Amino acid sequence: MNHPFLNIINEKVVIFDGAMGTQLIKRGLKPGECPELWNIEKPDIIETIHKSYIEAGAEVIETNTFGANRIKLSHFGLSDKVGEINFKAVQIAKKAAGGKAFVALSVGPTGVLVEPYGPLSVESAVEVFKDQISSALEAKPDMILIETMSQLSEARAAVIAAKEICDLPVIATMTFEESGKTLMGTDPATALFVLSSAGADVVGINCSLGPDKIAFPLQEMSKYKCIPILVQPNAGMPVLSEGETVYPLSPEEFAKSCLKLSSIGLNAIGGCCGTTPEHIKFLKHSFLKIEPLKVMPFLNTVICSDKKTIILTGKDPVKIIGERINPTGKKALSEELKSGKLSGVIREAALQKNAGADILDVNLGVPEIDETSLMKKVIPALQEAVNIPLAIDSSNPNTLEAGLRVYTGKALVNSVNGSKESLEKVLPIVKKYGAVVIGLTMDESGIPKTAGERLRIARKIIKAAENYGIPKQNVIIDCLCLTAGTQQEQALETINAIKLIKEELGCLTALGVSNISYGLPRRNLLNRAFLSMALSAGLDLPIINPLDNDLLEIIKASDVLTGRDRNASLFITFAKATKDRDSEKQFFLENIIPESSPEKKL
Amino acid sequence: MNHPFLNIINEKVVIFDGAMGTQLIKRGLKPGECPELWNIEKPDIIETIHKSYIEAGAEVIETNTFGANRIKLSHFGLSDKVGEINFKAVQIAKKAAGGKAFVALSVGPTGVLVEPYGPLSVESAVEVFKDQISSALEAKPDMILIETMSQLSEARAAVIAAKEICDLPVIATMTFEESGKTLMGTDPATALFVLSSAGADVVGINCSLGPDKIAFPLQEMSKYKCIPILVQPNAGMPVLSEGETVYPLSPEEFAKSCLKLSSIGLNAIGGCCGTTPEHIKFLKHSFLKIEPLKVMPFLNTVICSDKKTIILTGKDPVKIIGERINPTGKKALSEELKSGKLSGVIREAALQKNAGADILDVNLGVPEIDETSLMKKVIPALQEAVNIPLAIDSSNPNTLEAGLRVYTGKALVNSVNGSKESLEKVLPIVKKYGAVVIGLTMDESGIPKTAGERLRIARKIIKAAENYGIPKQNVIIDCLCLTAGTQQEQALETINAIKLIKEELGCLTALGVSNISYGLPRRNLLNRAFLSMALSAGLDLPIINPLDNDLLEIIKASDVLTGRDRNASLFITFAKATKDRDSEKQFFLENIIPESSPEKKL
Ligand SMILES: [Zn+2]
Ligand SMILES: [Zn+2]
Ligand SMILES: [Zn+2]
Repeated sequence: MNHPFLNIINEKVVIFDGAMGTQLIKRGLKPGECPELWNIEKPDIIETIHKSYIEAGAEVIETNTFGANRIKLSHFGLSDKVGEINFKAVQIAKKAAGGKAFVALSVGPTGVLVEPYGPLSVESAVEVFKDQISSALEAKPDMILIETMSQLSEARAAVIAAKEICDLPVIATMTFEESGKTLMGTDPATALFVLSSAGADVVGINCSLGPDKIAFPLQEMSKYKCIPILVQPNAGMPVLSEGETVYPLSPEEFAKSCLKLSSIGLNAIGGCCGTTPEHIKFLKHSFLKIEPLKVMPFLNTVICSDKKTIILTGKDPVKIIGERINPTGKKALSEELKSGKLSGVIREAALQKNAGADILDVNLGVPEIDETSLMKKVIPALQEAVNIPLAIDSSNPNTLEAGLRVYTGKALVNSVNGSKESLEKVLPIVKKYGAVVIGLTMDESGIPKTAGERLRIARKIIKAAENYGIPKQNVIIDCLCLTAGTQQEQALETINAIKLIKEELGCLTALGVSNISYGLPRRNLLNRAFLSMALSAGLDLPIINPLDNDLLEIIKASDVLTGRDRNASLFITFAKATKDRDSEKQFFLENIIPESSPEKKL
Repeated sequence: MNHPFLNIINEKVVIFDGAMGTQLIKRGLKPGECPELWNIEKPDIIETIHKSYIEAGAEVIETNTFGANRIKLSHFGLSDKVGEINFKAVQIAKKAAGGKAFVALSVGPTGVLVEPYGPLSVESAVEVFKDQISSALEAKPDMILIETMSQLSEARAAVIAAKEICDLPVIATMTFEESGKTLMGTDPATALFVLSSAGADVVGINCSLGPDKIAFPLQEMSKYKCIPILVQPNAGMPVLSEGETVYPLSPEEFAKSCLKLSSIGLNAIGGCCGTTPEHIKFLKHSFLKIEPLKVMPFLNTVICSDKKTIILTGKDPVKIIGERINPTGKKALSEELKSGKLSGVIREAALQKNAGADILDVNLGVPEIDETSLMKKVIPALQEAVNIPLAIDSSNPNTLEAGLRVYTGKALVNSVNGSKESLEKVLPIVKKYGAVVIGLTMDESGIPKTAGERLRIARKIIKAAENYGIPKQNVIIDCLCLTAGTQQEQALETINAIKLIKEELGCLTALGVSNISYGLPRRNLLNRAFLSMALSAGLDLPIINPLDNDLLEIIKASDVLTGRDRNASLFITFAKATKDRDSEKQFFLENIIPESSPEKKL
């Protein structure tokens, strides 16, 4: 996006304004009064506050619309005023700015719990935010500032709403607790990756903590250097003094503390609760010669739930995708899903997570079932039950989109293939939700016979993805295996394809291994051997049954052999922690001296 | 070797003569009389017999020296006549031939058991045959014909004796029983490969059976088409008629039966017991227009004991080298060896063979022990105890040679490396005994760090071997693995080296896997994973502890995945025959529905 604000923010640290709420109270706002109503009733006061911030040096001012959404306004019986309040608020700010400052539409939380944390659906939240933002757009704000969010799902819904109805820059900042996470348990990196994948152009941290305590979450965000960061701290941690909430930092102290944050890396700074035009004046002065964070593309693959981020470098221990949430061949699970019961999938999720799965594949392909509706129900239920990322698995693009829309995270999509139809239907969805997609090396002609042909299809998928604006790191190639029982010569082709594709395309690979043994006896044994082979070829994401402990052990051992588990440190810990069933055997093997001789010679 | 006889035998079927013994009896030789003494006492009769065969059409006549070795002659009190008898015999035959036929020095068995079958050492047998052959050489025979051998060790000792004292063509033929094997249990292919690797220029079958029954062993030899074959059948299977041994086939019948053998493939034919000049006359006539077997180099790797041949194509199920006969770190075994007891190594051999080992590595590196003397004792003892091939393993070239000399078979030598000293000391020995050598990819500078460097050393070893006349198929490359505990980044280099060396050099590979886990916990688990990886890269000969059943299972499974176990037929049989411990587990994994819920959600 080529927008003046987005250009400037990469060249200098942009100064945002300070608090609106505390300024309004100073000017007579009573407890229980609706601050946003003043846009209609006392526009001059709002304009004065904006002007004081601009005079103090603010380059971006925020509209008085923090609570101007339908749900918040309804507490004041003002839900029919959403349109007027937001329109007016932007109008006032634009007038105050007079072209000398950017106007950011402030979008705050609804105050209700959004799924997976509570009853409000993601879709309803999106509608609430669209309602607010669309009214404001007529007055032409310069950007949308989603702020003070403590629920990642709500922040993400607001970003989606903004992106779907306008082309303005979208900023999304969340509040973090002393724990370093949001109230709902989202860590800063996850907030960063999920919000940026949903379309935010700037992310950051506001409110809650003073500048000192913001250092940790800021560090956790800025270390990736992949998106500009806005920080708006409070004027210190609030303290109660004579029954009143007081923010302790003086303008000078505030500016000094903020300056310390600049060495961590940020692109814009302003103030939240307790800050005044005087605070912004000192801030502006302090940041005159500060260089902004230098942003560049982040080239690793990132997959997130709402509470967990997995960064795949291709050099760290492999991550396991659990394959068990799939009703194919599972009668009990199918029946439960048909009757609308989710306990089966939740049980499978918990079992797999406990067994060691890093990501859970979610396939709901039950015949005679509305897979899309089911996916909308299952994804939030799974996200509430387990905190690891999900792979949304369907051959139906509508189901994939439904899942992606309600999924609070940066999902894995399973899958696209090399056929024209699949690429055209799946890739736009992947792009929109910033997901990572598994590309199957098959096309209209089916699964090719050679490693070279698989490489050709992989290249085609990556190229098509890039044409849709999906970077290569968001495509993971699945080289597909057939059963060795009927297509024996193909087993090594799959292994060779993994090596070839990694070498030629430098992308990550996934592979479901269990199909290799279909129709043969001793399936687990064959799966184990095949898995080691695939891992030595460079497989990054085995798709397995994580309850098969032998497979997990093979993965841990292979991570040592492929150098992913550096110095075998995880393996040594694992060996200590698990019952060492091999050590007894090793002793036996080294010391065996049978009493009776096995051949006549003795 | 460029010798007129060896040229002719590849262009036409060469006719040998018939029996000497039955001709002598016809002319008055009494039971209990020494037939070879007639070379001195009645040379004219011998000359007459030779002439009658030449007139009948024989192109090669055999001297009357079948029993003219020191041991056989000692039964007649003639052990001091070895020199005179053999010299005279050749003289008589040369006179009879008059340049119109080749003269072959007949060398028959000593009549005593040679190790590993009995008390006479290989070295003593070699000395007995050298004694006989060297006396004959002064009269300039055209070739040495070692015949009617039923002990492979004795036949091989005679070949070694001949090759060490002359440059004449050496033929070695053995007698086979109705079972298709020699009396001591050697199959025809093993006889073929072991005798040719010891230096025989022609191998074959004589005596014992009539031409019809020779079809099977002949087929088993000629199918490899790698060396010219001589067949000398009896005139049918002997029958007792009125107290006399009678050979039933008339000259015409004999020739007709022999002609049938020609379609199987042979290069020379004559008669043994019961055949007469008349038989040879019909034979000559029958074979006038018969094409000989077309001989060409055999390009697969062959390793043999005295009773078993392993042909390595690189495409069949991998063969396992058992690593347990190695006193390093085995106190009990070391102590036994120091006190001269062989029961320990024999027990280890039997255990490993029973567990599924195909080849046994024999390393006797005990400090403060005469490794060379010990090797000379251990090899025959092991050959008597187990019938699978051995790998003679030592860093001392003298020990290697001592082992090779007494080993009745075509041994594997473990090992040579890329250093100048090792190549110069080990390769001549490997060449002399026709052994297969394991080439370690290390040299004066130690083990290289990259796969590419390992390839360079492998190429150097193969080239050096070829310079010594050792064909590429007799070199197996060991890419060597270091422990992942201290040289983690090297693990994949070993795997990559296997693939690279197989692709670039087209040779077979061996690898000891257990070193990979040295110093780490859960060694067997790491070994299993590493073994699968090496097998997928193409490893042909894993060197393992065959008592580790998990490793054997991984090998069986990998053979399916790499296509070596075609249609998984061995694997399916194995799965049926073994207790299917995975199947219960598989059922559990597919059907698990725990009663109590693992997370609060349920
Ligand atoms: Zn605040
Ligand atoms: Zn604020
Ligand atoms: Zn005979």
